[in-house]
Amino acid sequence: MKGEVKKVVLAYSGGLDTSIILRWLQDQYGCEVVTFTADLGQGEELEPARQKALLMGIKPENIFIDDLREEFVRDFVFPMFRANALYEGVYLLGTSIARPLISKRQIEIANQVGADAVAHGATGKGNDQVRFELGYYALKPDIKVIAPWRLWDLTSRTRLLDFAEKHQIPIAKDKRGEAPYSTDANLLHISYEGKALEDPWVEPFDDMFTRSVSPEQAPDKATYVEIEFEKGDAVAIDGERLSPAALLTRLNALGGANGIGRLDLVENRFVGMKSRGVYETPGGSILIVAHRGIESLTLDRGEAHLKDELMPRYAELIYNGFWFAPERIAIQTMIDQVSENVCGTVRLKLYKGSVSVVGRKSPKSLYRMDYVTFEEDSVYDQRDAQGFIKLNALRMRLAKMARG
Amino acid sequence: MKGEVKKVVLAYSGGLDTSIILRWLQDQYGCEVVTFTADLGQGEELEPARQKALLMGIKPENIFIDDLREEFVRDFVFPMFRANALYEGVYLLGTSIARPLISKRQIEIANQVGADAVAHGATGKGNDQVRFELGYYALKPDIKVIAPWRLWDLTSRTRLLDFAEKHQIPIAKDKRGEAPYSTDANLLHISYEGKALEDPWVEPFDDMFTRSVSPEQAPDKATYVEIEFEKGDAVAIDGERLSPAALLTRLNALGGANGIGRLDLVENRFVGMKSRGVYETPGGSILIVAHRGIESLTLDRGEAHLKDELMPRYAELIYNGFWFAPERIAIQTMIDQVSENVCGTVRLKLYKGSVSVVGRKSPKSLYRMDYVTFEEDSVYDQRDAQGFIKLNALRMRLAKMARG
Amino acid sequence: MKGEVKKVVLAYSGGLDTSIILRWLQDQYGCEVVTFTADLGQGEELEPARQKALLMGIKPENIFIDDLREEFVRDFVFPMFRANALYEGVYLLGTSIARPLISKRQIEIANQVGADAVAHGATGKGNDQVRFELGYYALKPDIKVIAPWRLWDLTSRTRLLDFAEKHQIPIAKDKRGEAPYSTDANLLHISYEGKALEDPWVEPFDDMFTRSVSPEQAPDKATYVEIEFEKGDAVAIDGERLSPAALLTRLNALGGANGIGRLDLVENRFVGMKSRGVYETPGGSILIVAHRGIESLTLDRGEAHLKDELMPRYAELIYNGFWFAPERIAIQTMIDQVSENVCGTVRLKLYKGSVSVVGRKSPKSLYRMDYVTFEEDSVYDQRDAQGFIKLNALRMRLAKMARG
Amino acid sequence: MKGEVKKVVLAYSGGLDTSIILRWLQDQYGCEVVTFTADLGQGEELEPARQKALLMGIKPENIFIDDLREEFVRDFVFPMFRANALYEGVYLLGTSIARPLISKRQIEIANQVGADAVAHGATGKGNDQVRFELGYYALKPDIKVIAPWRLWDLTSRTRLLDFAEKHQIPIAKDKRGEAPYSTDANLLHISYEGKALEDPWVEPFDDMFTRSVSPEQAPDKATYVEIEFEKGDAVAIDGERLSPAALLTRLNALGGANGIGRLDLVENRFVGMKSRGVYETPGGSILIVAHRGIESLTLDRGEAHLKDELMPRYAELIYNGFWFAPERIAIQTMIDQVSENVCGTVRLKLYKGSVSVVGRKSPKSLYRMDYVTFEEDSVYDQRDAQGFIKLNALRMRLAKMARG
Repeated sequence: MKGEVKKVVLAYSGGLDTSIILRWLQDQYGCEVVTFTADLGQGEELEPARQKALLMGIKPENIFIDDLREEFVRDFVFPMFRANALYEGVYLLGTSIARPLISKRQIEIANQVGADAVAHGATGKGNDQVRFELGYYALKPDIKVIAPWRLWDLTSRTRLLDFAEKHQIPIAKDKRGEAPYSTDANLLHISYEGKALEDPWVEPFDDMFTRSVSPEQAPDKATYVEIEFEKGDAVAIDGERLSPAALLTRLNALGGANGIGRLDLVENRFVGMKSRGVYETPGGSILIVAHRGIESLTLDRGEAHLKDELMPRYAELIYNGFWFAPERIAIQTMIDQVSENVCGTVRLKLYKGSVSVVGRKSPKSLYRMDYVTFEEDSVYDQRDAQGFIKLNALRMRLAKMARG
Repeated sequence: MKGEVKKVVLAYSGGLDTSIILRWLQDQYGCEVVTFTADLGQGEELEPARQKALLMGIKPENIFIDDLREEFVRDFVFPMFRANALYEGVYLLGTSIARPLISKRQIEIANQVGADAVAHGATGKGNDQVRFELGYYALKPDIKVIAPWRLWDLTSRTRLLDFAEKHQIPIAKDKRGEAPYSTDANLLHISYEGKALEDPWVEPFDDMFTRSVSPEQAPDKATYVEIEFEKGDAVAIDGERLSPAALLTRLNALGGANGIGRLDLVENRFVGMKSRGVYETPGGSILIVAHRGIESLTLDRGEAHLKDELMPRYAELIYNGFWFAPERIAIQTMIDQVSENVCGTVRLKLYKGSVSVVGRKSPKSLYRMDYVTFEEDSVYDQRDAQGFIKLNALRMRLAKMARG
Repeated sequence: MKGEVKKVVLAYSGGLDTSIILRWLQDQYGCEVVTFTADLGQGEELEPARQKALLMGIKPENIFIDDLREEFVRDFVFPMFRANALYEGVYLLGTSIARPLISKRQIEIANQVGADAVAHGATGKGNDQVRFELGYYALKPDIKVIAPWRLWDLTSRTRLLDFAEKHQIPIAKDKRGEAPYSTDANLLHISYEGKALEDPWVEPFDDMFTRSVSPEQAPDKATYVEIEFEKGDAVAIDGERLSPAALLTRLNALGGANGIGRLDLVENRFVGMKSRGVYETPGGSILIVAHRGIESLTLDRGEAHLKDELMPRYAELIYNGFWFAPERIAIQTMIDQVSENVCGTVRLKLYKGSVSVVGRKSPKSLYRMDYVTFEEDSVYDQRDAQGFIKLNALRMRLAKMARG
Repeated sequence: MKGEVKKVVLAYSGGLDTSIILRWLQDQYGCEVVTFTADLGQGEELEPARQKALLMGIKPENIFIDDLREEFVRDFVFPMFRANALYEGVYLLGTSIARPLISKRQIEIANQVGADAVAHGATGKGNDQVRFELGYYALKPDIKVIAPWRLWDLTSRTRLLDFAEKHQIPIAKDKRGEAPYSTDANLLHISYEGKALEDPWVEPFDDMFTRSVSPEQAPDKATYVEIEFEKGDAVAIDGERLSPAALLTRLNALGGANGIGRLDLVENRFVGMKSRGVYETPGGSILIVAHRGIESLTLDRGEAHLKDELMPRYAELIYNGFWFAPERIAIQTMIDQVSENVCGTVRLKLYKGSVSVVGRKSPKSLYRMDYVTFEEDSVYDQRDAQGFIKLNALRMRLAKMARG
């Protein structure tokens, strides 16, 4: 294996697992390792990752630490929310949507430093390996991809810790025992999977959650909030204009405080098995309700129904890791065009775990109070309904006559 | 117009509006009127309708009063819930799904009594006229359809009341003034529309709701409930087997007590305008969450995603009144086939307006704890993931190479 | 009716029917009539229409005669062919695609001359009335629309001729008797409907056709032709660059000479009945085959399949008259984006009624001879197929295990 | 590897390649080999395969030779044609549809003889390996699958021939040199791929084709044929009732004699690359046109359009090898239900490569001459069209008013 790879860009969190990978790459390939650590809003300090990389012999110029929060929300989260994307009816795709950005930045760094390989710390049974690697290949078709979890023999917790000790990789005390579940976090969500959660009949413990109080602990009085939209994206909260990341951060605070955004589901992985995941997406859970609210006023029916019919496909593409696939881009082009008129303000009630639209208004509203009224109006002649119904019924009448 | 119609079956509630229609039909067409009053779980006594019909000169043998609650839930509500149908992402179609049953029964009665016409009391701007009439025409292509609201000149409240007084139709005191909104109710839901609700920026008053307490008034402690499914339908609650209507009634009680099922939305009517509706669907709001929960365990991914992609179309068909259309039946056939394996139990937490799945189990579960584990297993070889990813990536690599 | 309309723009062919309409409008409404006659490549002189209009008292400044052939092909036919649109699997939508352009131009003229109404000569049972009027309303919501065929009492051939004679409208000799079928023509196609064609079991007579020789009469030797594409549109034939209309004209000549483009079908009209139509689309029948040929080389699989799945919907929208609907525009946006890379040359064999692709090449080809070969290559590792298959199979294995 | 497998069922043609595989399996695994040879209408004698198997030491009871032609057409080809399945708009899936039947029978034999493995001779770059193996796994989740082409080192023609000579496997003279392309044949079609066909700009030589004369060589006079359908399947030709396989055989003769069914295309393989294939499908090319013809008369518009929208997905599933996947079965259930009313007779003209419907009739026809006529009728009131159009236009008018 030595000589196979010259320089590899590793998606590096600074944690135990990716530190082991870092050393393993050095060992196995005798290659130069470049670390890339991103702030996607996961809520961890990044500087310790730099120190740890330095300690493990990474050259300073080979350590990349980037704050990608604004890019994440602006170019990934928001475009996805324009589509009202829900995987399998309920999941807001919080992990899925972060992967393509990491891939993209890793490949940019690889191009910049002249690396011939990239590596990630995702395991061999999950979706994330697919998402990372489809991103790598789509952006740099000749890249070498190293997925240590599919290659090495460190297949048990004991072996991993042995390797760490042998190579003097510091092990945090709480990493000695096994975590009761694995997590992934970014500005949109945090996920919990595996171990204690594997039995889908057993309810998650309340102390697992980190981004929201339980509905029971949330305030007894509802919180009202107004979100303003332009071209399908949220741009202001209660009148205050905010950058994408700042806005999502604010929504996370609002949602978390009101017990909003917990989800417990069994989902179908792209690799062919079902798994059980628990998610917290406080801000996103508010945002999707608000977005549907503003669309209800501003989208034409034909636009709205077309979007609804394509949404499951779109969500599946993101879940499966096809963010950079031509068909995801094609659907996005359509969604973005349709979103041009989606603007206005939605008023929401947040209360102990639930989000409800209680008001919406828009300068481009297609709702016209004067046509809905039961009184006469200038546009709608009630007698037109008869012809409308009769021609819609015609084919069914003919079918009944012919078929009995 | 006299002589045009010999005998007409009127969908008759016993209320003021349909009583006026009854008299108007007698006047205009000089025809025999047959009244049909159905118990769909709207929560009103039906015997007064019989008395009122008798008073207005309807022969006893021309008065039909049917309890259709079981048929309604078994043959209309449950098949629709197998599809997870939500119109425009949120609406559970509570009004839409009742109309075809009324149409069907009206036509059955027309066939039985030899009527040549049917009549309904839906207005000329709404969806219900379409739903009723598409049903009539689909089941009896040569039926005459009378929609008084599109025909007569009683186009204001004053004129209606004048007509009632002139014809000695009793007017309940609370009908003198105008209702602040119009409602429609059945075992699945109650709707509120029009008047006070016409401004979509204004939140509905809390005292409007009749089927649920507000989340704020709901118990401070969560209620847990287990729902058992067979072939995609709910069959038992907390171990007690219940008929379809009894089961939905029980869920309504549970939902209503926990502040569940209120919905405020702007929707796109089939007749081309947007309208604002407010709904209470306590039991249905629990049922759809539970149904998705049991499907998550028992449907194959291909089945689940196919259903998700067809759902918006299916919901649109029901919303638009095409229950008896061949393509609705075709999609239903597919959904029913797929539902054959949907069985097991879902555990839910109900709390102050929200419903959450907290557990699910099934004798036909496709979820396998032994394959999800991070340990080795007999079915999944982690090295397979590499080939899987590489072949999925191939077309994107070729596209990047060719297009740059 | 007098006074209801001040000035009306009539889609005027100069033929007997629209001349009768012209006079009827003057009579009925006492209004100013503006005539609009378009050259869409139907193959008729337009100047006689001007003379006839003048004779009937239309002011010179109220006579509009436009050559719209280039706009027709560039902005309507070509965008539609980018989608490979076929209604009900076979029909190239030759009539449907011309209607929105006529509507658009009529409304432009109405705006220019300050007309408050438009009128057309389509009958009350067909699709064309819908296509015209949806166009009018979409572009000018407050326009008055006059459809004489749905309004007047000239409901038989005899009455029409009587009206013409009474008003001294000249009647061409061949119009005295009834035509054996009705036709509609433009640069894309000619259609035949009604009368002699109404029995769908009876084959059309060969002498009906006007744009193509019969396959039997076509040359005994195949014609080969090369069509070059850019961004999804044909731009050159056998190396000669041609304008859109010139190119389609050339293809019509090639197709017509080789017996290509005749179609006999029973189709589902938007107004609810089936009808039998016979069409000649010589150039279009070549173009769609060529376009699929160039896409086969240059579209990514995901793009191609997405287009294929949306195509029936797109074709239905055009057939039903929704060219200006927001959802048609949304789908078009997607199709146009995907078409950016569709370029290259297709070689076709034309022979006695059939068109076959026999070669295709492109500077942006995604087909790579070096990867298809059975030999080893650098991109594809055959062992990857095992993992690919095993993970694709996993869910089916689990289903079989659980369901038996 | 020895000991890994006890008994393997090999899909065995009797040709050189699968004979080498037979020996290689014996060598590598030291296991018992069971051969399975199917008559799918490929047009080869099967008895030589038996002799060859015996010569290579296969026990008589381990040699399975089955005539599957009727099952093939009845249970695979006909259900697929009910869907009008065309992959990428043109390909009739002749190879794809045969693979699941071979898989199914192989697994039946494996169950019967107690084999723990199956093997096939498909290469590592194609679709067929996927189709075979998805079938195996779907039907017997714990089966071992051996794909020698992905495993062995016989990766060149020379090595293969060396292996054959070394093991005294007889080599037919014409197999010494390399075939100019590879073929696959069954009752539905024959395919040609690879080698001489790899450049998609080069037209195939006419002498390659084996099932059809060239259009140029076909008769100068058209052949007319009538095909009768019941429940969506062809059941008789020119009044003569035929079994499924006999009927397709007859259509092949008719098509082949008239130069019908040749197709040259570039397609997207499931494994991620494009390839060029040339196909002859004489009978199938007639059948699909005839089937659409009878559907045009007997399917309701809603049914027909639903089928059209799902068809690309359905075709993709078959192409990719998912015949036994739950979602293919689900769509099939729907298609079969819709096909219940598809009956009647279609009249076709076959002439020098083209197939045209020239007549169709059905006892369940939804086409009604009496409603299509321009005269008055009892079902259709032309004034209804106005209301129909106006309500269909309403949302577009509102959109124009709001958006300008």
